[in-house]
Amino acid sequence: MRTRLVDNFATAPAIAEVFSDGAVIAEMLRFESALARAQARLGMIPDSAAAAIARVNRFEAPQLAEEARESASLAIPFVRALTERVGGIDPEAAGFVHFGATSQDLLDTTLVLLLRRAREVLAHDHNRLQRKLRSLSGQHAKTVMPARTLLQPAVPTTFGYKVAGWFGAIQRSWRGWSQAFDEGLQLQFGGAAGTLASYGARGPELASALAAELDLAEPAAPWHSHRDRLAVLVAHAGVYAGGLAKIARDITLLMQPEIGEISERGGGSSAMPHKRNPSGSVVVLAAAAPVPGMVAAFLSGMPQEHERGAGGWQAEWPIVTGVMQAAGSALNALANTVDCLAVHPDRMRANIEATGGAVFAEKAAMLLAPRMGRTAAQSAVAAALQAHTLREGLSELLTPAELRDLETPEDYLGAAEALRRRLLEESD
Amino acid sequence: MRTRLVDNFATAPAIAEVFSDGAVIAEMLRFESALARAQARLGMIPDSAAAAIARVNRFEAPQLAEEARESASLAIPFVRALTERVGGIDPEAAGFVHFGATSQDLLDTTLVLLLRRAREVLAHDHNRLQRKLRSLSGQHAKTVMPARTLLQPAVPTTFGYKVAGWFGAIQRSWRGWSQAFDEGLQLQFGGAAGTLASYGARGPELASALAAELDLAEPAAPWHSHRDRLAVLVAHAGVYAGGLAKIARDITLLMQPEIGEISERGGGSSAMPHKRNPSGSVVVLAAAAPVPGMVAAFLSGMPQEHERGAGGWQAEWPIVTGVMQAAGSALNALANTVDCLAVHPDRMRANIEATGGAVFAEKAAMLLAPRMGRTAAQSAVAAALQAHTLREGLSELLTPAELRDLETPEDYLGAAEALRRRLLEESD
Amino acid sequence: MRTRLVDNFATAPAIAEVFSDGAVIAEMLRFESALARAQARLGMIPDSAAAAIARVNRFEAPQLAEEARESASLAIPFVRALTERVGGIDPEAAGFVHFGATSQDLLDTTLVLLLRRAREVLAHDHNRLQRKLRSLSGQHAKTVMPARTLLQPAVPTTFGYKVAGWFGAIQRSWRGWSQAFDEGLQLQFGGAAGTLASYGARGPELASALAAELDLAEPAAPWHSHRDRLAVLVAHAGVYAGGLAKIARDITLLMQPEIGEISERGGGSSAMPHKRNPSGSVVVLAAAAPVPGMVAAFLSGMPQEHERGAGGWQAEWPIVTGVMQAAGSALNALANTVDCLAVHPDRMRANIEATGGAVFAEKAAMLLAPRMGRTAAQSAVAAALQAHTLREGLSELLTPAELRDLETPEDYLGAAEALRRRLLEESD
Amino acid sequence: MRTRLVDNFATAPAIAEVFSDGAVIAEMLRFESALARAQARLGMIPDSAAAAIARVNRFEAPQLAEEARESASLAIPFVRALTERVGGIDPEAAGFVHFGATSQDLLDTTLVLLLRRAREVLAHDHNRLQRKLRSLSGQHAKTVMPARTLLQPAVPTTFGYKVAGWFGAIQRSWRGWSQAFDEGLQLQFGGAAGTLASYGARGPELASALAAELDLAEPAAPWHSHRDRLAVLVAHAGVYAGGLAKIARDITLLMQPEIGEISERGGGSSAMPHKRNPSGSVVVLAAAAPVPGMVAAFLSGMPQEHERGAGGWQAEWPIVTGVMQAAGSALNALANTVDCLAVHPDRMRANIEATGGAVFAEKAAMLLAPRMGRTAAQSAVAAALQAHTLREGLSELLTPAELRDLETPEDYLGAAEALRRRLLEESD
Repeated sequence: MRTRLVDNFATAPAIAEVFSDGAVIAEMLRFESALARAQARLGMIPDSAAAAIARVNRFEAPQLAEEARESASLAIPFVRALTERVGGIDPEAAGFVHFGATSQDLLDTTLVLLLRRAREVLAHDHNRLQRKLRSLSGQHAKTVMPARTLLQPAVPTTFGYKVAGWFGAIQRSWRGWSQAFDEGLQLQFGGAAGTLASYGARGPELASALAAELDLAEPAAPWHSHRDRLAVLVAHAGVYAGGLAKIARDITLLMQPEIGEISERGGGSSAMPHKRNPSGSVVVLAAAAPVPGMVAAFLSGMPQEHERGAGGWQAEWPIVTGVMQAAGSALNALANTVDCLAVHPDRMRANIEATGGAVFAEKAAMLLAPRMGRTAAQSAVAAALQAHTLREGLSELLTPAELRDLETPEDYLGAAEALRRRLLEESD
Repeated sequence: MRTRLVDNFATAPAIAEVFSDGAVIAEMLRFESALARAQARLGMIPDSAAAAIARVNRFEAPQLAEEARESASLAIPFVRALTERVGGIDPEAAGFVHFGATSQDLLDTTLVLLLRRAREVLAHDHNRLQRKLRSLSGQHAKTVMPARTLLQPAVPTTFGYKVAGWFGAIQRSWRGWSQAFDEGLQLQFGGAAGTLASYGARGPELASALAAELDLAEPAAPWHSHRDRLAVLVAHAGVYAGGLAKIARDITLLMQPEIGEISERGGGSSAMPHKRNPSGSVVVLAAAAPVPGMVAAFLSGMPQEHERGAGGWQAEWPIVTGVMQAAGSALNALANTVDCLAVHPDRMRANIEATGGAVFAEKAAMLLAPRMGRTAAQSAVAAALQAHTLREGLSELLTPAELRDLETPEDYLGAAEALRRRLLEESD
Repeated sequence: MRTRLVDNFATAPAIAEVFSDGAVIAEMLRFESALARAQARLGMIPDSAAAAIARVNRFEAPQLAEEARESASLAIPFVRALTERVGGIDPEAAGFVHFGATSQDLLDTTLVLLLRRAREVLAHDHNRLQRKLRSLSGQHAKTVMPARTLLQPAVPTTFGYKVAGWFGAIQRSWRGWSQAFDEGLQLQFGGAAGTLASYGARGPELASALAAELDLAEPAAPWHSHRDRLAVLVAHAGVYAGGLAKIARDITLLMQPEIGEISERGGGSSAMPHKRNPSGSVVVLAAAAPVPGMVAAFLSGMPQEHERGAGGWQAEWPIVTGVMQAAGSALNALANTVDCLAVHPDRMRANIEATGGAVFAEKAAMLLAPRMGRTAAQSAVAAALQAHTLREGLSELLTPAELRDLETPEDYLGAAEALRRRLLEESD
Repeated sequence: MRTRLVDNFATAPAIAEVFSDGAVIAEMLRFESALARAQARLGMIPDSAAAAIARVNRFEAPQLAEEARESASLAIPFVRALTERVGGIDPEAAGFVHFGATSQDLLDTTLVLLLRRAREVLAHDHNRLQRKLRSLSGQHAKTVMPARTLLQPAVPTTFGYKVAGWFGAIQRSWRGWSQAFDEGLQLQFGGAAGTLASYGARGPELASALAAELDLAEPAAPWHSHRDRLAVLVAHAGVYAGGLAKIARDITLLMQPEIGEISERGGGSSAMPHKRNPSGSVVVLAAAAPVPGMVAAFLSGMPQEHERGAGGWQAEWPIVTGVMQAAGSALNALANTVDCLAVHPDRMRANIEATGGAVFAEKAAMLLAPRMGRTAAQSAVAAALQAHTLREGLSELLTPAELRDLETPEDYLGAAEALRRRLLEESD
């Protein structure tokens, strides 16, 4: 299924496909046939019924979306349609479709199954991205550039360390998100309101069998109106997307021609032939922008009434799948972008030099402080910065050796390389 | 274009259609041919070129969405594809496609044209809804029921007045939203960065001609990175949706069987044959739930860099069209729901009676206060409420006539009817 | 009352003062004494009672906040405390405090009265800001600079036009916000649940008298659980704050030393003596950042149950006053910042020149297109941009006169000046 | 420091105290003296300087908040003021205040230290709440009540199981939040831009010493503009608050007099003497309502520029401390509320009976399905529900024994008790 033009750049092809109608119906059918198999295995329904149900492995149901609006539940028209199809195969089996289950069992577990697929698509792009960041950091371990705070050059750093910072954040967020997937991808199976009463005493046994059929973890209890695990999953998507957007923002800023320290392969302009735009980063930022609002929407919907919410629960699908698609779109765009990033070490060094020594002001102040006190040192440095270069301005106060090395970026990198290595190692 | 199953209930058929790919491309073509016509009229391009451009009135471009990711702009592949098609008709005309314009002119104005269509769909359902609320209020001008504060019965009111409150909020919000549409549906036309320099001195003249061709208002200046009008439009959608959700919440609460004062036609349950669910209201609440987060996303994206933002602008389409669809879905569901609402005046009166006079406690306290002071009066009433009914509890303190009327709801409606009428009249 | 350190920069002194405890209590007392005066005038309570109530014009009640948590209402302990104080003056009058009114009448109207004061503080700073922007735009009507799209230089513009764009957005948003204040600052007075039943038939008459006493507009009906007007007021604060943040973002970007086109008076750094930070703009951005989330919170709370919400309503005070303070803090910081902005026309021109003619690429393509077709023209220009300057690259294709003027920014400003004037005039 | 009246109910006394000015300054001083001690231990500054710095253990600085607005940093006026005070004790020591550190080291680490204190306050109330929920669940393991879906009675459940569901969600969320605290409470120490260059090669050694002094975990590298750990901490607060609000919503709904299954000790009304409001739950809902928007605000601010953001970073304090206070206020109110909850098992059973057997419809359908097919069974049950009671309606179709037990709630609880135990055990 193609994504709609108006949804640019809120999704991307592979992650959109995970949530296509075909995929949704396939996972719904997977749930129903797994339920029937588990029930047959426990002797709750005839084997022949399970076999008939399993035979419905495709589904064309263009009217499902509209029918779902009537009952506020996609499950109701789906079960009706599936029952008809099963009845066409084996009339007796029709009575055993969705046997004893409730809409929410079907819909929540389907969402979980879809998220399991989404995780694979996301993992693929995350691995691409982190590998590239890791190697980029290594390549530029010694490439000096200005670190910037509040968009002002501060002190020298290395591009390798900057990239390691990006890498570290993304890796930590991915670990958190992975844990949230591990904990969130659990079977929902509770019957009408979480007691599994329609199965008498055998509900838990059936739940275990169903979880095994679907290869899903089984929670301590159904989670009808307790959405904390999904909330954590959605929130981690938001944190991860925030990390992607941070990288993209840095790229757009470094790619300003007046700074020119890196460049994307870039996209064009419909009006201006010369433009080389940070198109990839822009897609990342555009995709990530709505995510915080979606996270808020999910959290706002958590106070769900009693054993199944009236509104909050039914609002979840577009939010959860929207967050996954947005994060996936941003991730895909960033992985592609970082893959083709050109780095310009000459401009980085030139931008250090263009500060007239200002990025060494702290260094100078630290040299002078022990000799004249910190306040006097800072005043002396501030005065020196009025001169053409800091070196000139401090020619009376520093030793010749100090002056010679004063504006050597490599001499004022502190622990950049050690910290860079730690960030990479932490995530091995 | 069908809506995706995962997007249930975030959109609805008619409003989804407004933002279908076909509609998007149609409006993009409308912009380009209007631009060409206006330019031909002003002698900027040959008439023949305008004619050739106008001849491309359909478009199949399944790859547009993906190409747009490359350039971070749907306009670029669209203009390229249109240029090819025009070139097939008249090679010379190809050079005059999108002549002197910029991507943002095309995309922003297309969004405006789509919103103009959305407004019509919304207005249709709003009119249905407000008419029904108005008549429902009239029918139940004398139907007494308990007003409730903090979910506790407070004093009597009428269902007609309650509905008038719903009606008033919706009408006010609609007026605000309408004004936002009036002010927001303006041409965007500024060339590469808002100066219209590619048209020399004739830019403003061309802008006026183009606005006339499109029947759009013309702003004082292009609004590349000033998104306040769109923001207001989106925010009003949020306010309106909040009003819809308030009504839906009240319906779900009144429809609790223990209260049972109104009922929807209702939807069923896949597990429980007896259930009559507030399905319509649930769809309203589900559709409206993500809107506040989308409004926040739009507002967060407003600080767009310089003359065209790098991320914030490109994030807008899914947000703006998402808000319109969500509000439209909620509106459509509520209009349908209110259309089939059953009201149960007997249960309303019974619920008043079941309070044992508690909803007349204020009335009793107001009667007693002049005689014994307010504090004593409130204590007396509180004590009286421990009796079986308030009337019994106060039999020593009130006159027989007062006692007789004490628990007559019609006697303690205050200005309910006057205020009901005012709400309806205000919105005539 | 000082603002808390942790709330930096979410509020600012003058706007924080509007919402101080002293101000809150003063407005609560204003409501109660106005109510008593209106009731005395209508003969509902003795003149002496109104006089006694009016005499309580100060209040020390350090325990109010905590007591409010007990009853989920600040009104209840306040009315209790006021009743005690009035009783100390005139025991009989105590029974007429808050006579027939409800908590919500007091709290909502107090909020409205506080917002009326907030509006004055905001208007003061808005006027400062808009005046300064207007004059800055005029001073730099002819100061050329690069317009930038996606953070890349696009074509020339003027700083005056850029500032006019800022000005126009702020003025439009202010007008919208002002209208929202006009419509939102209305009396809330409905008694227990909106029927004014405690006043018998005289409720509307009393409401009018009370509105007159408070110099507030009177709505068609009480608005207990219909919060649309407040929502619009909050949303417009969000739109306005978004406009402020856009200006601040542009300033931070233009103040990057590599661009250096404007500078703030700036703040220092605790580590680096040389730093000149965009401190004012940073405060603007920091203050504005949480506003969208607060707008979402307000909108999410709109579906309030029946005649008084259980949670949504009680959540409003911190949100509404938080939005006003955040917007006020951002506004105050921006007005101060713009007041002291240094503009560097030489750097603006130098940045145009540093593009090697790239910002004139569109101009060149427009010159060449009529001669060689648009596609060929764009290719020729793209090729020419590989040369040292565009002028060199096009020396074979343009006439000497065209070449001479090619890279003159003043020659490619299009309608910048006309549009600048329109923006200023529109807001006269 | 008292909380402001307008901030009701966004904070509560104990958690507000954690973020009082006194506490903020105390933690800032703790950082500076720990830094000095660590530096003295490593021989970087004289012991006497460290001793002098440690002697400044109180601080009155009413002008700090305002000065912070000038420099967009609370650290700058704080360090200046501390330096003055230290200079008053030992002029030489003044030069060693905040030696080599940067504003962000101080501010981020102070925030972490404040959060460590907040965690204790939160843990205290969480423990109260979870203990009470656990015991409440145990007391009512056999108390039957209607489970409700979409606000409609569905099937029987037990109040003990319902409470166990609340308990389970809160415990899971607390575990997640605790882990987020464990991972988020880390030292920030990077010098001007994360390289620790001012300390030459000894930066990492000093960082370790400082972490030890403060008893904080030490991260792999400074996290100037990588805010993922804080984001996770904030997001988990949102998830936890959502769980609190879910419980509070259920309480408000169960406390509707028409349902009357539980009641809070309750608060009064300023107008109605009889009202017993769900005041505690209302405070919970009011406090929790703005949290999702704050989470969104934090996430939106994550794309921070380069090595220190210009706006996004400075926006964090009010958001992070606001989230903690809001969650803490909700938690405190809920712990108090649950402590005094009255449960009404008679009303619960009566509400089951009042459904006329409808909550046993699923049970009946499951009995009949094997005999007549599911569709026929559901039709038969639906028809039977039109009779006075389900039992009557099915008198022809079920056996006498089946009829006798049909409407016994205890006979249709399924696995409620087993699942209840699992939820409690899982969290031991």
